[in-house]
Amino acid sequence: MESPGTLDAHRLDGEQPSQADIDLYRVLSADISAGVAVVSTSLRKRDYAATVTAFLSVSDDPPTMLVSLYAGSRIGEAVAATGTWALSVLRSKHQGAADWLASPGTPVEGLLAQVPYRRGPATGSVILDGSIAYFELRTVAIHPAATHLLVVGEVVALGGDAPGSEVPDPLIHFASAYHRLAR
Amino acid sequence: MESPGTLDAHRLDGEQPSQADIDLYRVLSADISAGVAVVSTSLRKRDYAATVTAFLSVSDDPPTMLVSLYAGSRIGEAVAATGTWALSVLRSKHQGAADWLASPGTPVEGLLAQVPYRRGPATGSVILDGSIAYFELRTVAIHPAATHLLVVGEVVALGGDAPGSEVPDPLIHFASAYHRLAR
Repeated sequence: MESPGTLDAHRLDGEQPSQADIDLYRVLSADISAGVAVVSTSLRKRDYAATVTAFLSVSDDPPTMLVSLYAGSRIGEAVAATGTWALSVLRSKHQGAADWLASPGTPVEGLLAQVPYRRGPATGSVILDGSIAYFELRTVAIHPAATHLLVVGEVVALGGDAPGSEVPDPLIHFASAYHRLAR
Repeated sequence: MESPGTLDAHRLDGEQPSQADIDLYRVLSADISAGVAVVSTSLRKRDYAATVTAFLSVSDDPPTMLVSLYAGSRIGEAVAATGTWALSVLRSKHQGAADWLASPGTPVEGLLAQVPYRRGPATGSVILDGSIAYFELRTVAIHPAATHLLVVGEVVALGGDAPGSEVPDPLIHFASAYHRLAR
């Protein structure tokens, strides 16, 4: 039912957002909770991997997923170039790896020296050991959107926990920090 | 570091996924945690609103978001037709509204009779009272992807909690159920 009163929304009026518009958007959009994954690909025998929260399942027929990557980032360029990639959905125990692979200054060499992983059989992309679920994908479309690329992929292989093998305990991102689910 | 052994991934080999492929994907993709929002629009004086977990922030310059909607759904058709919509990011206290607006059989008339809301000033779309954050958007692109539409919008107005006004307590979706964050 419609409540009395009005919302005190902040309107973006200009053609270009102001710095105040962008700052307010950053604060409010940080309040979107999300699971945490590592997106990875391999290009010319080099592994690329980065922590993401901007990913989702699009469709189950055919199984299709999306990840949003900054167009100018190393991982964005690598995923766009290779056309195959993987998503590893993280547990709370992966928080150290998530922090490491989210930092802007990660090295190209030795990126995964401390991160236990195996390779996906379909793409050769890195998949973090102990992921709740993992998906290997083949890109079917890339849509530029503002500063980012929306990379859409069809699932070519997938796996995860044996049912009941472990309480999943997913890693959650909310308000610029990591969290766990209440039990 | 690369671990010994191989992943026992399930590969999708055919041109068309089998029912077993789709069923496995449904199980594993349910293990992606997500915040919960209501997407809404108004078309010919009628309000449309549905619960979504497949939404994300794409970019902050300009502020840009994405929602993935089933192409054949009432909400998908309405958002595509109007070109303006809103996202209300939900708290755990909104679980009843989230359940209601997620059910496939919601009525066209009386949809929001029990859901307190106000209208966004920029689009007239419904925004649930007490949302952690809300965003009004103008569609800038619609990309079909498998069974869904990826609707990309630029933010035209936004708002949310006054800082410190209430512990946010977001509603979280994981493994086909609603959850809260651990404190």
